Amino acid sequence: MTSIEEHIEVIRRGADELLVESELRAKLAAGRPLRVKAGFDPTAPDLHLGHTVLINKLRQLQDLGHHVLFVIGDFTGMIGDPSGRNATRPPLSRAEVQANAKTYTDQVFKILDRGRTEVVFNSKWMDGVNAAGLIRLAAKHTVARMLERDDFGKRYRARQPIAIHEFLYPLVQGYDSVELRADLELGGTDQKFNLLVGREMQKEHGQPPQCILTLPLLEGTDGVNKMSKSLGNTIGITEPPGEIFGKLMSISDELMWRYVELLSFLPAPELTARKRAVKQGGNPRDVKFEFAREIVERFHGRNAAQLAGEEFNARFRDHETPADIPEVTVRSPGGAATAITQVLKLAQLASSASEAARLIQQGGIKVDGGKVSDKALTLATGRSYLIQVGKRKFARVTIS
Amino acid sequence: MTSIEEHIEVIRRGADELLVESELRAKLAAGRPLRVKAGFDPTAPDLHLGHTVLINKLRQLQDLGHHVLFVIGDFTGMIGDPSGRNATRPPLSRAEVQANAKTYTDQVFKILDRGRTEVVFNSKWMDGVNAAGLIRLAAKHTVARMLERDDFGKRYRARQPIAIHEFLYPLVQGYDSVELRADLELGGTDQKFNLLVGREMQKEHGQPPQCILTLPLLEGTDGVNKMSKSLGNTIGITEPPGEIFGKLMSISDELMWRYVELLSFLPAPELTARKRAVKQGGNPRDVKFEFAREIVERFHGRNAAQLAGEEFNARFRDHETPADIPEVTVRSPGGAATAITQVLKLAQLASSASEAARLIQQGGIKVDGGKVSDKALTLATGRSYLIQVGKRKFARVTIS
Repeated sequence: MTSIEEHIEVIRRGADELLVESELRAKLAAGRPLRVKAGFDPTAPDLHLGHTVLINKLRQLQDLGHHVLFVIGDFTGMIGDPSGRNATRPPLSRAEVQANAKTYTDQVFKILDRGRTEVVFNSKWMDGVNAAGLIRLAAKHTVARMLERDDFGKRYRARQPIAIHEFLYPLVQGYDSVELRADLELGGTDQKFNLLVGREMQKEHGQPPQCILTLPLLEGTDGVNKMSKSLGNTIGITEPPGEIFGKLMSISDELMWRYVELLSFLPAPELTARKRAVKQGGNPRDVKFEFAREIVERFHGRNAAQLAGEEFNARFRDHETPADIPEVTVRSPGGAATAITQVLKLAQLASSASEAARLIQQGGIKVDGGKVSDKALTLATGRSYLIQVGKRKFARVTIS
Repeated sequence: MTSIEEHIEVIRRGADELLVESELRAKLAAGRPLRVKAGFDPTAPDLHLGHTVLINKLRQLQDLGHHVLFVIGDFTGMIGDPSGRNATRPPLSRAEVQANAKTYTDQVFKILDRGRTEVVFNSKWMDGVNAAGLIRLAAKHTVARMLERDDFGKRYRARQPIAIHEFLYPLVQGYDSVELRADLELGGTDQKFNLLVGREMQKEHGQPPQCILTLPLLEGTDGVNKMSKSLGNTIGITEPPGEIFGKLMSISDELMWRYVELLSFLPAPELTARKRAVKQGGNPRDVKFEFAREIVERFHGRNAAQLAGEEFNARFRDHETPADIPEVTVRSPGGAATAITQVLKLAQLASSASEAARLIQQGGIKVDGGKVSDKALTLATGRSYLIQVGKRKFARVTIS
């Protein structure tokens, strides 16, 4: 049995905030497994490394013997965006929800322990709540308190519309904690307000309030924005091994340390050792390589990781990619993608777009180790690419 | 068949605002009876003259051939005040709602035409709306728009709590118009915002929007505040004939004209004639007497009205109540009621409370014509009383 001290240490590692620690200690002291809740949106089944920061923490809690409630928010998913303002959120059918959920769990059990995970759909209880029930939930919460939520407050002051139902969604999420009798809820730092609503709801229903643990939001491969599918800066956990490996190798050294902190399962002393080594002149590329292997192994197994590393080396190191590749950031002229010819010009790897086109025609341009044959190729905003011109000219180009 | 011009004239008489007149003309031109909606709270079944301003207008519309939808808001009545802040609004059971509704209709059919009235309970459709349905209704309305409502805006700025469910109630009321396919909704001037929500809801549901007609709020017998049970300044339509008669005779002359305008069915030219007569030196008491007779007759019949008038005269005029009774207003030291001994002192009808007590003991004090025997008697704030001291000293005392 792990001691309460050790428990708290594992829980806090890499986390942002734990509320309220004394309450959590009391729950742990009671000796029974905690009911640990985390909510997921049923509309985005492509998990990326950003999601795994939280899922990893759930796994650590499972390894300590606790029970995970993996809540799929299908009740609101099936409503969609009824204000009609967000065309990308059509209401989902029950069949779609089920299909998405399957894709979710197929992915999530690469990390979570099936035996200690309960996948629950909040429609199970919310479908049984009528208008009067929702009114009763809403009555205990004030408009002013909702407008204290960061994003609502900003939008209200900026005179951007907030539809009334948006005030109801945190109540639904909070009520899930009541139904599930959660002891602890995990969420991103942007979810803190909603997690606190869950605490309040439980108190109103005479339950001991859940503790909350917030986790940092992982930056995308651009190193600037939160990792998010809509920004095109993600590394998906179902991407092919070589893709994950290449993307991880292309991030900046600074971002690498952030990723290692939040995603690696390396024991803390070993992480410290790596940092010391780099400070004393070691090549950060080695840490990055080891880390890329660890992540690919997690999602594709040891053999795939081994192979991805070898292929990467075969492409780059063994073709004498110089150790110090200059890093260049170019600003996209607009949109999510920029023509390769534009990128070459902006990065000053070609004097003009037409020279760039000529270089491509001559077979002189490689992107991430692959020869470019189509001059209409576009590169995604928010990502970094290793671009090679001719035999010797390299640059790591980030498109922002 | 009444012309559209005449229709509009009847509808506008005594009303505050008609929106949108051109739309109403078009509806009338279609030739079918209008579906006229008015909503009532099931928690306050004691109707008073304040309520009848609107009910009279409904009756006038019935006389023009239209159909009245008398909506009892039992859905929210059965929820009560779930915020728990208002202890005077416990949730009502279905049996209580039914009992209240019966009391309501027993009273309201003293004015309305049963054959052209449909009493409907909004629980009929609202009970079938689930949480998802309510969320969909809420999604089409913004927080900012709700905070534009006068009372919400004031409370928000004054940092007084607004519970979230309060934003949902106008939506429920508005949705009633959709279910009922209302052509016209009537309400007090304080209901304008909610009536407009009904218009918007109908548009969202592809219906022609209802017109709205707002009616002034009648002042209570104090001549200052809105007539309201909680302020103790009402004249209830089920009060005994003598009580109604006496209360109406005790209001100020100025307030009398307001009451006559909003409550009397006297044809407009006759009303003008009364005003002219008083201006030329006639006694306003005669107008008041005739008006009190009309109102008592409306709720208790012709004989009761006749008798109430005679009894009033026997008590006051025939006992040589002086024609010019001084009017005195005293301020209640606090609370809804003041001891008669205090009132006598404040109105300078006795030099002290103990002298007042002595006068009562001697049988020398009458209130509204009745001898006072209990010196612990209290008089209600917001009402006027005819107080007599000894044989000749009179004052009409208003307690504010």
